[in-house]
Amino acid sequence: MRFALTVLGANSATPMPGRFPSSFVLNHHETLFLIDCGEGAQIKMSEFGIRRSRIDHVFISHLHGDHIFGLPGFINSYNLNNRTRPLYLYGPAGLSQFVNHIIDSTRARLSFELVFEEIQGKQYRKILDLPLLEVFAFPLVHRMPTYAYKFVEKHKPLNIRPEAIEKWSMSFAEIQEVKSGGDLLRNGQVITNGQLVLPPANRRSFVYCSDTMFTKTIIPYIQGCDLMYHEATYLHDLAKKARERMHSTAYEAAEIASLGRVKSLLIGHYSSRYKDLQPLLEEARSVFEHSYLATEGSVHHIGTALAVKPHQTPSSKPQD
Amino acid sequence: MRFALTVLGANSATPMPGRFPSSFVLNHHETLFLIDCGEGAQIKMSEFGIRRSRIDHVFISHLHGDHIFGLPGFINSYNLNNRTRPLYLYGPAGLSQFVNHIIDSTRARLSFELVFEEIQGKQYRKILDLPLLEVFAFPLVHRMPTYAYKFVEKHKPLNIRPEAIEKWSMSFAEIQEVKSGGDLLRNGQVITNGQLVLPPANRRSFVYCSDTMFTKTIIPYIQGCDLMYHEATYLHDLAKKARERMHSTAYEAAEIASLGRVKSLLIGHYSSRYKDLQPLLEEARSVFEHSYLATEGSVHHIGTALAVKPHQTPSSKPQD
Repeated sequence: MRFALTVLGANSATPMPGRFPSSFVLNHHETLFLIDCGEGAQIKMSEFGIRRSRIDHVFISHLHGDHIFGLPGFINSYNLNNRTRPLYLYGPAGLSQFVNHIIDSTRARLSFELVFEEIQGKQYRKILDLPLLEVFAFPLVHRMPTYAYKFVEKHKPLNIRPEAIEKWSMSFAEIQEVKSGGDLLRNGQVITNGQLVLPPANRRSFVYCSDTMFTKTIIPYIQGCDLMYHEATYLHDLAKKARERMHSTAYEAAEIASLGRVKSLLIGHYSSRYKDLQPLLEEARSVFEHSYLATEGSVHHIGTALAVKPHQTPSSKPQD
Repeated sequence: MRFALTVLGANSATPMPGRFPSSFVLNHHETLFLIDCGEGAQIKMSEFGIRRSRIDHVFISHLHGDHIFGLPGFINSYNLNNRTRPLYLYGPAGLSQFVNHIIDSTRARLSFELVFEEIQGKQYRKILDLPLLEVFAFPLVHRMPTYAYKFVEKHKPLNIRPEAIEKWSMSFAEIQEVKSGGDLLRNGQVITNGQLVLPPANRRSFVYCSDTMFTKTIIPYIQGCDLMYHEATYLHDLAKKARERMHSTAYEAAEIASLGRVKSLLIGHYSSRYKDLQPLLEEARSVFEHSYLATEGSVHHIGTALAVKPHQTPSSKPQD
C-alpha cells in the first residue's frame, strides 16, 4: 500500500530554476495530500503527473510567501476545470482571509466550496480523521505562527493465522472477537490473542516540520516516526544566522531526528546561497546516518526502503 | 539601440510545463519593463538571465489570476534581496489593494516603496514619460477593466550632415536651431532643414493587447506600430466561445493587425486545449503575413528583423 512523498519544491524563500519553493504531495493509497504550496506548485504537479483530482486536503505550515504563493493559481485552476468537490484547507489563522481576498480581487466565482480549518494555540491535536489515516498538528517555533503536520496510518483489524481457525474450529463471532484483539476460551483455557493472529502491520507515519528553529519541544510528537521532513536552511557555520531568522541548520535537523529516534530524515528549505546541496547532506549524515535530500521530483517511500538504503540517491525521475 | 521583447510566458489561464501564464519583459536600451506577471514569472526571469535590478516599472493589464499571480513572489524576492529603489506598478483600480493585502498577510515589511498608478476610465492617455520612451494606456474589452499599453520611443534631436556644417559655416546657435528642426538663412535664401540633416531615426513602438475580444476601437491607437502583441486564445472555429469569454481568435488578432497596419504581430495567450500552436500561427498568417508565435524564452526585436523575416522562427534560446 503506497505511502510516499513527492517533492514539488524544497527551496527557501527565493526560487530558482530547478529549486522551486516549498511544496510536497503525500500519497497514501492514492489519496493525495498537498503540504504547503509555494509559487509554481501547480506547474510542477503537471510536470510530475500528479493527479490533482485526488487532492481534497491542503496543509499550510505558515503564511510566509514561499509556502503559500502557489495557492491562488492552484485554486484558480480547479475553478477553471469546474471542480465541484469541496477543498479543505488547514493552516494558521489568517489563511482564509489571504485566500478569500485574492479570489475576490480576481472576481472569480468558485465552482466549489473552500472549507478552512484554522489552527490556533499550542496544543498537539488531531485535525483530520480519515478511514485509513489521521493527521495531527503541533506548533513549531518560527517568526509567525507555524504548524507541523503528522500523518499516521490507522490500526487495521488484525489478521488471524489461517491454521488457528482450523485448529480451534473458531466460529464467526470468535473470529471477529480475535480480529479486534480479544483472546479465545477453549475447555477453560485461555488461548492468548498473540498465538492466534499474525504480527500487526506497522502504523507508518510521516511528519512535516517547516519552518522552525531548533526546538526540543517537538520531540514527543515526532518520536519513532518513519520519515521526518525537517527544514535545514543553513549549514551549521551559520547557526547564529539560523537562530536570528528562526530557521535550523542541517546539523540541528539531524540532532532532532536523532533525539526523536525517527527512522529517516529528509532535509529541505535550502537557502539559495547553496548551489551545491551535498555539504548540507553530509553535515546531516555526520549526526544522523539515514538523512536524505529533498530534491525536486524525488519520491520518498515511507516506512520501507529509505531506512535501509542510506546511500541511495532519491530518484530524480518522478513516479507520482 | 536594443528594443526587444522577451516572452516569459504566453499561455492562458491554466499553466503547463513550458507554457507559463502571461508575462513579458521589454528591454529598451537596457531599461527593463515587466508587462503582466503570471505565476512563475520570477522563476523564468532567473532561467532566462533577466536582470531584475533593471526593472522599475511594472504594467498589469488586468486582475485575472493568470496575469498577476506571479506578483507576490516577484515583490517578495526584491524584498529578500533588500531592494531600495521604488517599484512603480501600473494597472486597473484594485491593483494596490490586491498587492498590499498579500504583503500584509505574510507580515512582510518591504525594504522599498511600492508606488501604484491605478488607471481608470476610457481615455487614451500617457501614463509614463521617460527621457527615451513614453508609455500610453488605452482600454480593451474584456470581462473586467483591462488596459493595453503602448511603448513609443521619443523623438531624438536630428543629426546634422557633417558636410553641411562646413559648407555653410554654421554657427553653434544655427546648429542648435537646425537640430531642433529649423531651416537656415544664407544670403536671403532659405536652406530647408531637410537639406541639412540626416533622415530622422524611426520612432519604434510596441503595443501590448491582452486580454480582449475583437474590437475596432483600438485601431487608432495601434496604427502603424512596429510590433503588436495581441491575444489569440482560440482558433476561429471557436469564435462563438471567444466572444462569450471576451477573448479573440488568431484570425481576429490578425485582422486587427491588418486594419491597424502594424508591421508585425505577435500572438499569445493560447488556450491549453492547443497542444500544437502551429495551427494558430497558420490561421493568423492566412490574414496577416508577418505574424509570429510568442513562445517561452523567445526574443522579438522591435522595428528590425521581424518584419522582413516572416518565416524566421523566433529563437528559443533566450538572449535577454
